[in-house]
Amino acid sequence: MNTTHEVLDFVHDGHKRYLPHLSIDCVIFGYHQHQLKILLIRYHAHTKWSLPGGFIARDETLTQAASRILAEKTQLNDLFLRQFHTFGDSPTRLNELGARQVHNITYSKVGVTIDQNNWLADRTLSIGYYALVDYLDVVVKPEFLVDEYCWRDVNDIPPLLFDHNEIIETALLTLRSQMYQQPIGYNLLPDKFTLPEIHALYETILGRQFDRRNFRKKLLTLGLIRQLAEQKKIGPHRSPFLYEFDSDTYHRSLEEGAVLGF
Amino acid sequence: MNTTHEVLDFVHDGHKRYLPHLSIDCVIFGYHQHQLKILLIRYHAHTKWSLPGGFIARDETLTQAASRILAEKTQLNDLFLRQFHTFGDSPTRLNELGARQVHNITYSKVGVTIDQNNWLADRTLSIGYYALVDYLDVVVKPEFLVDEYCWRDVNDIPPLLFDHNEIIETALLTLRSQMYQQPIGYNLLPDKFTLPEIHALYETILGRQFDRRNFRKKLLTLGLIRQLAEQKKIGPHRSPFLYEFDSDTYHRSLEEGAVLGF
Repeated sequence: MNTTHEVLDFVHDGHKRYLPHLSIDCVIFGYHQHQLKILLIRYHAHTKWSLPGGFIARDETLTQAASRILAEKTQLNDLFLRQFHTFGDSPTRLNELGARQVHNITYSKVGVTIDQNNWLADRTLSIGYYALVDYLDVVVKPEFLVDEYCWRDVNDIPPLLFDHNEIIETALLTLRSQMYQQPIGYNLLPDKFTLPEIHALYETILGRQFDRRNFRKKLLTLGLIRQLAEQKKIGPHRSPFLYEFDSDTYHRSLEEGAVLGF
Repeated sequence: MNTTHEVLDFVHDGHKRYLPHLSIDCVIFGYHQHQLKILLIRYHAHTKWSLPGGFIARDETLTQAASRILAEKTQLNDLFLRQFHTFGDSPTRLNELGARQVHNITYSKVGVTIDQNNWLADRTLSIGYYALVDYLDVVVKPEFLVDEYCWRDVNDIPPLLFDHNEIIETALLTLRSQMYQQPIGYNLLPDKFTLPEIHALYETILGRQFDRRNFRKKLLTLGLIRQLAEQKKIGPHRSPFLYEFDSDTYHRSLEEGAVLGF
């Protein structure tokens, strides 16, 4: 929605094109050299930040909806979004009044008031999706209703709208537990990478430090990475071996339920 | 719903009490001595089986809804239901006509026809929950609309209604991948169990065989189980050591993102 006309149409007739009661929120993790951040947006006239989110069109799949919503709110395209949890337990997901107040502030930009019969005032559950990108590689362009955006460190997230803090916590827990089971982060490293590079990625995302030799051994045992004969030329006395992700082994292991290498 | 009156009220006025467009389906895994089964129900007048499912009341949390739905459809109470995925991608989740035809067969028992304006004819996404029980420990009592139920082996699931086969496949993949990260199955074994007992549980759920000594070493390394000094007296020459789940270590590991023992 990039014009007043589009927003007014959405408020008044959106329920004809979108499913009510159900939204999608996107947790976009941004990694770069020892930093892990999350993309937040601030809707018009709000003091609190929130996650980019939106509604599911009646004729699109859930996966299509997640990609479209992220693209509309941020202009980010072609991210690999993974669904991780659907949120419907917190008080803010039961309290319809809360949603109405929040929308009233946002839509003050176009001068409309959300009355209690408007579809946007209904109780709404939210399906969470996450993606992991290099935040220096992407350009965010917020839409009409969004006043600004920021990349905020995962250890410094302020109180957000609705239950978005809980959504981020769950996303982070999911990302961390899946780091060991899936080649997450392959898009954040060059095709061939050094041990220090992948070690830094894992330490940053997991938020803790661990011994580099044990780490190497573990990833090799799990079949997540493979050591190459090739070495990287850094200087006369520094030429570390290169590694690559081993997605074949990973997928076979997962299918066989043998991720831990029984 | 256990009377004609209740069912008629649900068909005509259910949208006032329940959120439209959103259902919950439950995959109940039943384990007993080397067998892994799934609870299926057959709605009135249908030839195909399906998963027990239902709708979310407007004033209850998602977690409350999942427990209530399972209890209503099967009389199973107090199961630890875990949410695993929300389904909205398959053609059957986009095709509203499909839902209407299925409901028309079911509700033929009370003589009503679902017209295309009825809330049950709307496109419906489904949130999947799963639980793992000993199927000999539970008594299933299907409700009014359900003609019969069965426990079907995971390797012998027939074509089901809607996308329920896909829901089961996803549930099984989730269960299998979480076996290594969480003390799943602690309710299927005695508090103190032998190595052969937990080995059989894992082999059955993972659907494959693996070396018992490596398995023991791996679970001990992960901190999932702890060996006790106590031994089980089976006979004069058989007294295997007993083990117990170590949920403290597990929870600490998960929080620290150190499930694999870095």
